[in-house]
Formats: sequence, C-alpha cells, structure tokens
Amino acid sequence: MSAESPHTLVTLANRMLTREAVLDAFGHVSMRHPTDPGRFFLTRSIAPELATEADVLEYDLSGEPVSSTGLAQYSERIIHSVLYRMRPDVNAICHHHSPSMMPFCLADLKLRVVTQLGAAIGRQVPMWDQREGFGATNHLVTREAEALSLAMCLGDSNMVLMKRHGATVVGGSMRELVFRSIYGCRDAELQLRALTFGDISVFTDEEIALAGKFPEATLARAWEYWRSRLPNA
Amino acid sequence: MSAESPHTLVTLANRMLTREAVLDAFGHVSMRHPTDPGRFFLTRSIAPELATEADVLEYDLSGEPVSSTGLAQYSERIIHSVLYRMRPDVNAICHHHSPSMMPFCLADLKLRVVTQLGAAIGRQVPMWDQREGFGATNHLVTREAEALSLAMCLGDSNMVLMKRHGATVVGGSMRELVFRSIYGCRDAELQLRALTFGDISVFTDEEIALAGKFPEATLARAWEYWRSRLPNA
Amino acid sequence: MSAESPHTLVTLANRMLTREAVLDAFGHVSMRHPTDPGRFFLTRSIAPELATEADVLEYDLSGEPVSSTGLAQYSERIIHSVLYRMRPDVNAICHHHSPSMMPFCLADLKLRVVTQLGAAIGRQVPMWDQREGFGATNHLVTREAEALSLAMCLGDSNMVLMKRHGATVVGGSMRELVFRSIYGCRDAELQLRALTFGDISVFTDEEIALAGKFPEATLARAWEYWRSRLPNA
Amino acid sequence: MSAESPHTLVTLANRMLTREAVLDAFGHVSMRHPTDPGRFFLTRSIAPELATEADVLEYDLSGEPVSSTGLAQYSERIIHSVLYRMRPDVNAICHHHSPSMMPFCLADLKLRVVTQLGAAIGRQVPMWDQREGFGATNHLVTREAEALSLAMCLGDSNMVLMKRHGATVVGGSMRELVFRSIYGCRDAELQLRALTFGDISVFTDEEIALAGKFPEATLARAWEYWRSRLPNA
Repeated sequence: MSAESPHTLVTLANRMLTREAVLDAFGHVSMRHPTDPGRFFLTRSIAPELATEADVLEYDLSGEPVSSTGLAQYSERIIHSVLYRMRPDVNAICHHHSPSMMPFCLADLKLRVVTQLGAAIGRQVPMWDQREGFGATNHLVTREAEALSLAMCLGDSNMVLMKRHGATVVGGSMRELVFRSIYGCRDAELQLRALTFGDISVFTDEEIALAGKFPEATLARAWEYWRSRLPNA
Repeated sequence: MSAESPHTLVTLANRMLTREAVLDAFGHVSMRHPTDPGRFFLTRSIAPELATEADVLEYDLSGEPVSSTGLAQYSERIIHSVLYRMRPDVNAICHHHSPSMMPFCLADLKLRVVTQLGAAIGRQVPMWDQREGFGATNHLVTREAEALSLAMCLGDSNMVLMKRHGATVVGGSMRELVFRSIYGCRDAELQLRALTFGDISVFTDEEIALAGKFPEATLARAWEYWRSRLPNA
Repeated sequence: MSAESPHTLVTLANRMLTREAVLDAFGHVSMRHPTDPGRFFLTRSIAPELATEADVLEYDLSGEPVSSTGLAQYSERIIHSVLYRMRPDVNAICHHHSPSMMPFCLADLKLRVVTQLGAAIGRQVPMWDQREGFGATNHLVTREAEALSLAMCLGDSNMVLMKRHGATVVGGSMRELVFRSIYGCRDAELQLRALTFGDISVFTDEEIALAGKFPEATLARAWEYWRSRLPNA
Repeated sequence: MSAESPHTLVTLANRMLTREAVLDAFGHVSMRHPTDPGRFFLTRSIAPELATEADVLEYDLSGEPVSSTGLAQYSERIIHSVLYRMRPDVNAICHHHSPSMMPFCLADLKLRVVTQLGAAIGRQVPMWDQREGFGATNHLVTREAEALSLAMCLGDSNMVLMKRHGATVVGGSMRELVFRSIYGCRDAELQLRALTFGDISVFTDEEIALAGKFPEATLARAWEYWRSRLPNA
C-alpha cells in the first residue's frame, strides 16, 4: 500500500463513510498510531465530511489530546480510547448511526450475514443497551464506565450494535474498517428488504468463516472505488 | 456565531431544508425580527430553494407585509403570524410536508423519539385535524380561526402534526429550528423503517428530557454540515 | 406567462418529468397545437431527456407527422392522437411508467388522494386492462381500437391507470399536466408508504373538489422550481 | 450501429451498469470476441466503473488471459468462460449483486415479469444454490465444477439467480445484455414494491413471448439514454 499518513487516512475515511451513508453530521472514525500503540488519531468535533488533515488530533488512551488545544472534542471519544486499550488487535474504529443499521437497533431483529461481502461483520454481532446498565441517559457514551461496558459487550467481535443508538465497528486496519463498515450496512439493507417478505436464507457460521477473510487486494479494490466517488475525487 | 442577517438566515434555511428533503416546491420557513418581536421575516410566495435575500419580506403579526408590495404572498402565512403571537418563546417556524413525516399524518401511527438527535422534537407531538373543527376544506390553513386552532393544538410543544397535510415546527432560534426539522424527519424515517418489523424500542420521557437539550456547538456542527451540502456551497 | 413555443414547452416538460422520476428512457409527453386543435406536438422516438427542439414534430390527429420524415416514431403515439380527438378540453398528455404509480397497476390497490397537491389527479382514476379487451398482447398500445378503449375508460377523468403498464395523464395546459403528473406520483408515493402501516385517512370527494383547483400562480411556482432543478438549468 | 470496439463496449457497459445500480465495487461484464468465438473480453480485477480500455483483457475459454500479464484477475471469471463455452448464442455476460435482485436471492420469492420492458428476462429465471452441490463455501464461483453447475441451471434461459449471492445475465449482444440487466432489475424493484401489498398481476408466458423481443431501435434508445447519464458523458 501507499505510504499514506494517518492524517490522510482519517480524513479520507471520514469522507468515504459519509459519501456511502454510514456517517452524516455525526459519527466518527479513528485509527491507532502506526508506531505508538498508546496513541490514536481522531478529528476534533466536526461533521466528518468537513474535516481536513489539520483537524486530525493525536490522543492518548485516556481519551485526551496529546497536545493541549482549545478545540472542541467529540463527547463520545471515550469509545475509541477504551476500545484501543481493551483490543490490542484493533487499529481502526468507527462509531456510526447509519439508517441501514438503525432498524436492528430499534426492532426485535437479529443482524445476520446474507452475502459474501457482508461476512466482513463476522459471526456474532452483540447488542448493547445503555439503559440496562445505566438507567435513563441521554444515550451518549461519555463516561468510562459506559465505554467499558460497551467494550465488554463487543468482546472479540468485529462490531457491536447499540440499542436506540447505532453501531461501533472495529478493524485491523483502516481499509478493513471502512470495508466492514460499508458492507456491513449494505448487508443490513439487503436483509431488511428481504425480511419484508418473510423468512430468509442466511450464511452459516462455517460459511461466514470461509467468506469473511478478505485479501488486501479486495479491500484495496473497494477502497479505490469509494475514493473515486468522493466529491472532487 | 456570525452576525448573519435575518435575510441571510431565512434564505439559508430555505435552501438547507430543501436540500435535506424537508421542503420541496412548497412549505416555508420564517424567523422573528431579532429586535422587534412584533415583526417576522418570510419570503414572498416562491419555491423556497429559489428565494434570494431580495425575496425576504418583513411582516407584522397580522400576517401582512410591513411595506406594501405587489408580490404574491404565501396563502398560509397566517400560521406564522398567529404562532409568533401565541408563543413569545418561538423565534423561528417551519411549515412542511416532508415525505418522512407524511405517513404519520395518514396512517394510525404515533410519532415517537427513537434516537438521541430525534429527541429534538420533544416529548409530545400533538396531531391537529382541520376536518374536525372546520369540516370539508381544501386543507390549506388560510384563516385566522384555523391558525388559532392549530396553535392551541400545538400548545407548548415543539412540533404539531397536521392530518393529511404535514407538520409545523417551532424553535427558539433558526439553528434550533433547522436542527429540529431535519432530525425530526430523520427520526421519523428511522422509526418507519423499523416499524415494518413489529414493535420497536423508544425513548422514555425522562430520556427525551435528558437528550433533547442540545448545546449551541451541536446545532452549529450540523448547520455547517448542511451548509456545506448546498449546491454552490 | 412567457411566450414559450410548443417546441420549448415539450422539451422542457420531457426534461422536468425525467428529472422528477416520472419518465425514464421511455414514456412521452405531448401538447396540442395552440391555434390548430387538429394538430399536436410530440418528439420523434427518443429518450425524453435527450430530445432537443429539433426532435419535436407536428402530428395530425390520425397520429401521423404532418411533414413526411424518415425519423422513427413512438409506437404508442396513437394514445395521444385519439385522446386529443376524444377530449377537446385536453391540451397536453403524458404517458408514463413511473415507479411511484406502478404498484397501483400491479397490486389490488386503489389510488386515492391524500394531500392537497395530490388532489390534482381528481376524484376518479379509472383502471384500464388491455388484457380484458384484447387478450394476450405485448402490452403496447399501438392500435386505434386499443387507444379508443383506453380513452373510453379515461372518460372525463384527469388520469387513467393501465394494468401492468403505467398511467396516462391529461391536462388543460402543459403546466397543469406537469403539475398533475408529478404531484400525482408524489401522492401515490406517500400513500404507499402509509399503507404499509394499515388503513389511512384520505380526502373526501368534497375535499378533492375544493383542493383540486390550482391557481396559475401555484402551477407556475412549481414549474419554476422543477425548471431550476434541471441539469444545466 | 457504430463500429465500437469491444474495449469501448466493455468499459461503457461497466460504467452504465454501475450508474444504474446493477454493479458497484464488485460484479463484472464481458463480451465475446466479435470474430473469434473462442475468445472473450473482460477487465482485470478492478471496480467496474474505474476500468479504462487499457484494463480490458482478452481471455480464452479456459478463463486465462491470452497474453500473460502480472495483473490481478477476477476470481469468478470462470463464470464467463464456461458460459461462453456452453452457450454459443451468448455474446455478452453480466454477473452482479444488485440490491434490486437480492431479495429474490434471500427470501422465498419467485421473480416474475410485471412490465413490457421487464419481459427482457424471459419466461423462466431458474435459481441456483451453490450450497446444494458444493456444501459450505465462501459463495464465490471460482471452480470449473461450480461454473458448470451454474451453467446447467441456467440452461437456455436469459438469466439465473444465485441463492445468497446475486444473478448472472446473458445476451446476444452487449446492448441486449445491458438492457436485460437494467430492466430486469427495474422489473424486480417494481414487483417488490407491489408485493408489499399482497398478490400482484403478472405477465403470462404468452405475453412474455410477445413483449420480450425488442427491436434494435429500442435497445439503442435506452443505450443512448444511459450513456447520457454517465458522469462526464
């Protein structure tokens, strides 16, 4: 792959995920520092599509910017810092509220895998409900205890759904994360459309295991496609 | 915030709300005069997206332009003048027929809050039916008695649904109004999609109260995002 | 109104109706000659959006071009010529297969009026089934007997649905026709979305009569909006 | 028709089918060599919309490039080579996973013909399930035995659905293939929308036979329309 800097990757991911309807004015995506696992990159509080590389800040795993700044921060950045602490295998994280995923967060529906590309989400997508552990809240994950609870629920899965809220997706690399986030949403859309007409046929665990390992070339092919679709690509 | 004039804010809101599918060739948005509470700003009768600052007129609370003009006026401008009279706390109003909200105006469905951002609509969204008080009409709210009836139904809520017609939304500022109008529609869309699959989980009144107060920074973040999405932004 | 020529009006209508998802590569729109009621204007066979004024031909009421031409003609132009013969009050016609209207042509659903603007379609929208009178066909209306049967079914209504095929809409002017075609489709969309959730509230015949008469200013407002949305407007 | 080269036709088809939502970052389209039936043209592995004429390679019917190349190949190119071997009448092939067709691959729904243009898919669209013959797989068709099984299931039809995967469409020419792929998806969309409301009226076999033969002018009219819709057309 090219020697793209974390600043470039984070802003590209922000724009791609917005263009592909995963993010809108809200939601955020981060990546771990490539050489210092105790640091990660995330933008200041801003609509993801509008972020430039100058908006990408470096954070430590307590969730605070490494360099003091007067800029506003995402109130939910604790999701990222806690997950980077708990999951050493994770190098990129996206928290979103895509309309494709929300029906699974509202109705009594189980997210399954229905296509080869959708297998990127993996065999188990657990559901976390902030209300269960924390009672009545504004549904923002801003406290360490909430983020830890979310991380426990995620376990070693690739994605966790959040009741009445959205989803948090993790990846081994930014390309894998973007691929998983987008094709997770696409797979969700397809099964929603099909479920309108009754029972559907889904991938077995064995098939998910066989289909869900994507070579770098597959991730790159999709990445270049989404990149080409950016405004002013 | 910047020192944007009412004329700028009204035309920006018109364009944003059209771009985000709240308005189309019809519907309208107004704001109260910042220093004279007995006046408000609204465009002449025109498709909202096409209005320029020269199309923004100043009205008094009887619903008539302050300066005589030969220009055609919105037949439903009485909605705005009556609501500004009845609700001193309201500084901006949008009347729309968004496809996101119409199913709630046609089917026997209750609009709920299902996301943090959707809490902007508040705990109670009453339903007004012109037919109940006024019999067979063309469904345009053009008489003071109709507007008063609508205002009574709205009460101190943030939004009122209108049977077989649309919705009227109010806000303390233009930014709050635009945020509430758009995220109200987004929340409606999400619950419609989910309701296809049976019962859904919704916010409690306590959660709506906790989630529904948005800091100015949140409103501004969304405002800048929608502004960036305008044609020729 | 401006002194737009029939050639300009026909090409504008073609482009607007495509932009608003009434037409695609197929479907067609015509208008009667403003001074010679025995003539009408329609393009040669071409995707509507691609037609220029040079593609607009003059036809007589037998459905043949007034000037001989080597250009291919729409195979269904007989719909237009027969309707102009049968309905002296009609000055513009659109035949389309909009996805908004097709569910009413396939499922056992009755098209109703659910909004003020949708009242443009009028109180009765009859359903015509080519199969009933003509047995197994390719579903193109290419014979005079088929077009006459369609016209009989239309009667004095504003629109007729065609089973497994689409819709034919008529208007007193091009602006009225375009307004009726687009808001007919919008109204159909809204009721489809609402019908997913059970019974819906619809306009009464009296309300349709009250709402369905639109002043020229209303038609012009929508016309200018749609015109502004054309590519290279 | 113009003397367009296979390289031009393949890249145009790739772009049109992406623009019309048949392909996305995945899926592929090929055409047989116009003078050497033992060869066909397909791009290297790349998102279809991004392919230039330089990306179009010549393959033999074993599925290998005629000239050795270091470029990555589509892992499912065996679908094309086997179908060109088995179906001498076929000169163009598209394999896709369009969201319009996927509900038929997931739910217990039979694809029917509901419009004149949709008759392009023909009377029988068989369903192939890789799981039946090959057990648990990653759902990619990469082995000759799998492609042969798919071809057997297709038989002399125009299209075969693939359970939990997508569709493979064949045509006598590139124009016919593109027309069939797109209007097949459009017809699928229409029936899905209508099926939400219960039983629907569909074309009989006799009507499909009457409607499904399209003159070259019809294919060309649609082709020019889709071409005009390409970015930078």
